Amino acid sequence: MTRQVFAGAVAIGGGAPVRIQSMTTTPTSDTAATLAQIRRLAAAGCEIVRVAVRDEADARAVRALKDASPLPVVADIHFSAKLAVLAIESGADKVRINPGNIGGEEQIAAVADCIRSHGISVRVGANTGSIEKEHLQKYGRSAEALVESALQNVAVLERHGVHDIVISVKASSVPLTVAAYRMLAGRTDHPLHVGVTEAGTKESGIVKSSVGIGALLLEGIGDTVRVSLTDDPVEEVYAAKRILRACGLEQEFVEVISCPTCGRCAWNSMALAQKVERRVFGVKKRLKVAVMGCVVNGPGEAKDCDLGIAGGTDRCVLFRKGEPYRTVPAAEAEAAFLQELDRALSE
Amino acid sequence: MTRQVFAGAVAIGGGAPVRIQSMTTTPTSDTAATLAQIRRLAAAGCEIVRVAVRDEADARAVRALKDASPLPVVADIHFSAKLAVLAIESGADKVRINPGNIGGEEQIAAVADCIRSHGISVRVGANTGSIEKEHLQKYGRSAEALVESALQNVAVLERHGVHDIVISVKASSVPLTVAAYRMLAGRTDHPLHVGVTEAGTKESGIVKSSVGIGALLLEGIGDTVRVSLTDDPVEEVYAAKRILRACGLEQEFVEVISCPTCGRCAWNSMALAQKVERRVFGVKKRLKVAVMGCVVNGPGEAKDCDLGIAGGTDRCVLFRKGEPYRTVPAAEAEAAFLQELDRALSE
Repeated sequence: MTRQVFAGAVAIGGGAPVRIQSMTTTPTSDTAATLAQIRRLAAAGCEIVRVAVRDEADARAVRALKDASPLPVVADIHFSAKLAVLAIESGADKVRINPGNIGGEEQIAAVADCIRSHGISVRVGANTGSIEKEHLQKYGRSAEALVESALQNVAVLERHGVHDIVISVKASSVPLTVAAYRMLAGRTDHPLHVGVTEAGTKESGIVKSSVGIGALLLEGIGDTVRVSLTDDPVEEVYAAKRILRACGLEQEFVEVISCPTCGRCAWNSMALAQKVERRVFGVKKRLKVAVMGCVVNGPGEAKDCDLGIAGGTDRCVLFRKGEPYRTVPAAEAEAAFLQELDRALSE
Repeated sequence: MTRQVFAGAVAIGGGAPVRIQSMTTTPTSDTAATLAQIRRLAAAGCEIVRVAVRDEADARAVRALKDASPLPVVADIHFSAKLAVLAIESGADKVRINPGNIGGEEQIAAVADCIRSHGISVRVGANTGSIEKEHLQKYGRSAEALVESALQNVAVLERHGVHDIVISVKASSVPLTVAAYRMLAGRTDHPLHVGVTEAGTKESGIVKSSVGIGALLLEGIGDTVRVSLTDDPVEEVYAAKRILRACGLEQEFVEVISCPTCGRCAWNSMALAQKVERRVFGVKKRLKVAVMGCVVNGPGEAKDCDLGIAGGTDRCVLFRKGEPYRTVPAAEAEAAFLQELDRALSE
């Protein structure tokens, strides 16, 4: 069990649900564009949003974002204590910094004082691109180097009285990421921000993130997750939701079980499965539905489904809890099932 | 370390590479369509293909498939010992059956004799839709029920002298799948066929399969994998390749590291990353390339990349092993990088 910290009103760690976060891709000082993106992220299920702060205009824009954002805003600042202080004074709910790169002791003290006086939390983290030199020399690009580098940043903040700290140790290599978080989880009770960094485009990035984040969540490691995709950040949120669902960490959703179809499949179950998936993705209701190509696995697999359909040669059978209750011609199966689905969703 | 068995010339288990398999969705007796799909699967990287055998025409078609297929052919038969024998006599390289559902002792003995005399291997398995009644009553829909049910099928075959057996225990629930395979791996040294069953459409199925298969592969569990998607089976093969790569189990490929972009990104790195990903996906060459939005993580993360690019406001920098060697205007960055990439690919 990790400690609990807050980003605005959103608890992270200490038994809180695993939080989904993402990062905007708009210039932060373009507050209209950034707010529009934040609203899309929130609608998709994002719970915490991070914005990059490159300059004073970005730092000052945090105020307008914070005032209008439906989500807590995390300011991401590198190389500048001054910008960190400005972003916090502009109302950032949390900052993502590495004390190691914002200057000397005086600068670090100024930022730490500001964090404490505003009562906000901070994420520090190492990724394979930002390991402190001494750890890189001592350990190479290893889990040890990531963990030591991150914990050194934690120690600096704690020495300055900052304790509400979330930690990350990301690599673009999945096995390295998993090894680093396992090691880190054994050495700290700070909440962990979990992700695979620079995971790539949607197609490969979703797989890398699912394997890495999923393996950790299944072990109980991870308090907030970020899927990094070179794509619209809304896709990151969808992927994160799917990972949480796959790991059994989200219950209020409509699970769609559908078979891959094979030579036994004599109707277009794929088209129906896709339609069903699209229709129910955002629905917050605990329901399990099955779209099965044939009767070999269909009825058995659909036993614990609230609603199911399995195809035959020219007729399809509708199930409730694995029990057939209606037979329809294959040509009418789609319309009949979607009607039953809508009824189940509105019940 | 598991034992080794063969599907045709392809070794499974015992230290062989983790094999990618898929299943055709065409009617098996339509040999032209099925062979066309098998060739597409092989071109995508599939190593073993399974076909559904529903009737005598399907079973006899195995001969023509086997003669022309570039991949070993596994015949998938349920409820009929006669069809199993016919498929084996038609040249199947492996069969997927459950002795529990093909008839009494006499039928099982006939199939086992046929398997032995043809020297082929067999996969048996339980999924949550096919757990034997006694185990379901004793254990419910649990890992124990899946494992006991599968091992009972193994025991039946072993009693009949069949020992080249691959085992699967699939559920549509990822945590249940992972728990079942972990338990199974502790109780047998037969090679394991790993997958999440009825995982759904491409979007959610890839995540569920990546989390489940990935978590197991990272622990060293799994000798052959099947990603089940309600989609073109070629997509299953792509996803399986990506999972193996993410787990560090495939080395000969071009890894594309690309950042998610953020408010710091002043050029269209996403478009370039997607182009690069598409260009290199099938290339068998050990190479690591990075497409980074900005200089915060770019150079550091690209340190171990053979080739990289990071953007600035109006200029981009090209790297080799993290060392900048060329600066180009942002408008020319894409063309310049793709040219360098082609050179690196042809070296």
